[in-house]
Amino acid sequence: MKLASLNKGRDGELIVVSRDLSRYCGAADIAPTLQAALDAWDITAPKLRARFAALQDNEITSFPFDAAACHSPLPRAYHWADGSAYVNHVELVRRARGAEMPESFWNDPLMYQGGSDKFLGPCEQIAVADTDWGIDFEAEVAVITGDVPMGIGAGNAGDIIRLVMLVNDVSLRNLIPAELAKGFGFYQSKPSSAFSPVAVTPDELGHHWHGGKLHLDLHAVLNGRKIGAPNAGVDMTFNFPQLIAHAAKTRPLGAGTIIGSGTVSNVDRSAGSCCLAEVRMLEILADGKPVTPFMQFGDRIEIAMYDEHGENIFGTISQRVVEYTEPH
Amino acid sequence: MKLASLNKGRDGELIVVSRDLSRYCGAADIAPTLQAALDAWDITAPKLRARFAALQDNEITSFPFDAAACHSPLPRAYHWADGSAYVNHVELVRRARGAEMPESFWNDPLMYQGGSDKFLGPCEQIAVADTDWGIDFEAEVAVITGDVPMGIGAGNAGDIIRLVMLVNDVSLRNLIPAELAKGFGFYQSKPSSAFSPVAVTPDELGHHWHGGKLHLDLHAVLNGRKIGAPNAGVDMTFNFPQLIAHAAKTRPLGAGTIIGSGTVSNVDRSAGSCCLAEVRMLEILADGKPVTPFMQFGDRIEIAMYDEHGENIFGTISQRVVEYTEPH
Repeated sequence: MKLASLNKGRDGELIVVSRDLSRYCGAADIAPTLQAALDAWDITAPKLRARFAALQDNEITSFPFDAAACHSPLPRAYHWADGSAYVNHVELVRRARGAEMPESFWNDPLMYQGGSDKFLGPCEQIAVADTDWGIDFEAEVAVITGDVPMGIGAGNAGDIIRLVMLVNDVSLRNLIPAELAKGFGFYQSKPSSAFSPVAVTPDELGHHWHGGKLHLDLHAVLNGRKIGAPNAGVDMTFNFPQLIAHAAKTRPLGAGTIIGSGTVSNVDRSAGSCCLAEVRMLEILADGKPVTPFMQFGDRIEIAMYDEHGENIFGTISQRVVEYTEPH
Repeated sequence: MKLASLNKGRDGELIVVSRDLSRYCGAADIAPTLQAALDAWDITAPKLRARFAALQDNEITSFPFDAAACHSPLPRAYHWADGSAYVNHVELVRRARGAEMPESFWNDPLMYQGGSDKFLGPCEQIAVADTDWGIDFEAEVAVITGDVPMGIGAGNAGDIIRLVMLVNDVSLRNLIPAELAKGFGFYQSKPSSAFSPVAVTPDELGHHWHGGKLHLDLHAVLNGRKIGAPNAGVDMTFNFPQLIAHAAKTRPLGAGTIIGSGTVSNVDRSAGSCCLAEVRMLEILADGKPVTPFMQFGDRIEIAMYDEHGENIFGTISQRVVEYTEPH
């Protein structure tokens, strides 16, 4: 099934969306919000599935679906941890600055915790005070988990994946070096992220979802120009169950935890890139210096994934960068 | 006023607690949870204050207050960011391992984002799989904010502090070096934190709350032995408004954001320490090696703060370390 949240209140209003994203029907009578649905998934999921079936079969009143009326599926969440599962990407970033990547990075996932108290909507503007901060998008896949016990093994973690969605993990590249040098990881350099309008259950992805990975191309389009469409199932060193197990090593994870893949990246460079930092790294490696600028005010990034019939699975993240001006 | 959450459901049930922590009355009719109260603070706060006044004046039915029946004031939160405002402590940690502290640390706060999806209750056991991980407590002060606009200045941030409480920021010291070496900050080395049974409004702290700091001793007692009681208002390089402004530089903060002070630490060593890591650092600096072990299974840590009359302000965080055994 496919779920989304209308942009109402702090937590949105839960709706069920048709497979082709053309129509939706309300689901607030089953659970007022997606978080509430996840908190009682064993009870709510069967009801939501029945609602989805009725919607698909046109047995229920429905309304035209508009991604722009949606917030991120979880407008705010209790936990948003982002891995760097495409180690090839990490190695490239390091190579461009002449740093060796530790061998352990192939066995021990990198993961940081991001701000989750105020996500951006999928079509919401990215307001940033200063383009000198190096505004970049990062196109990723993410999963939403149920309750995960502490110490779970990767072999069992896959069963606790409730939903799959896309992410734009907005990054302020020029704030990163100084921030990481302090040793405490990202904070100011990772402002609010946005997620795809629609989150879908793994079964909805059919044979494209296997081995704990999503085997489809992730499209990143900047101002109408395709930057890349690498396959999210290729070169993913750590699959989602492994990332979940890493996150749960020393603590349980609450229902509604979002685990991200990190920027999707393929070794095959013809697939292009899912962030501008990678584009610039490749330019540095080829010509000694980057040519592509980071995002400017007015730039629009679109992130989407299509099935083998060209159908948009999650809806499109479509965000424009604007200058932030303080209130008053 | 003083607020707490009975340990019911994922988000607790909001109650109002008497100043002397002897009695409480329900407040779920005003807001079912503390998060709900914070989400609509302008509406709920006056009603909660009236309820608190009625409780103080014995004009309302009340019940005996039991900290053990409470969860942390926010059993789960959307944002928990912990600063390292006692830079003296940071310098000490560095000195013990022979590392210089960058001068910028005196002007630019260290801050990491912690797991907030499943806090421990104030009297809940700290379950850890392995004592080799180096189990430590960190006694700190924290504030809960309302909605904070992006880019707020420190001069305005103090007005958005809704509540003050204490924290035990549990740390796994022996996991930290390898994790920080990866460059992405803490994750597995910072398992679930616990907060004091009661959160209080700043006005409740009277003249002890000024300059964006709480000027009282924070007591840390391990197995009945006082480890330290440094004054939280002394040697705090960054006050809470400055920490909030740092957190909000590139993004807004949602109502219910928790900002921690970092381990309280005084330059005056006679005050003792608020974590075992600092005790061990001082031993290293004095004798070349640490003598005090990290926490073992069965150890109990108690964290509390008292006013000038010896009254416990927030209730006591009282937690025992136990061995975690996986379910099944």
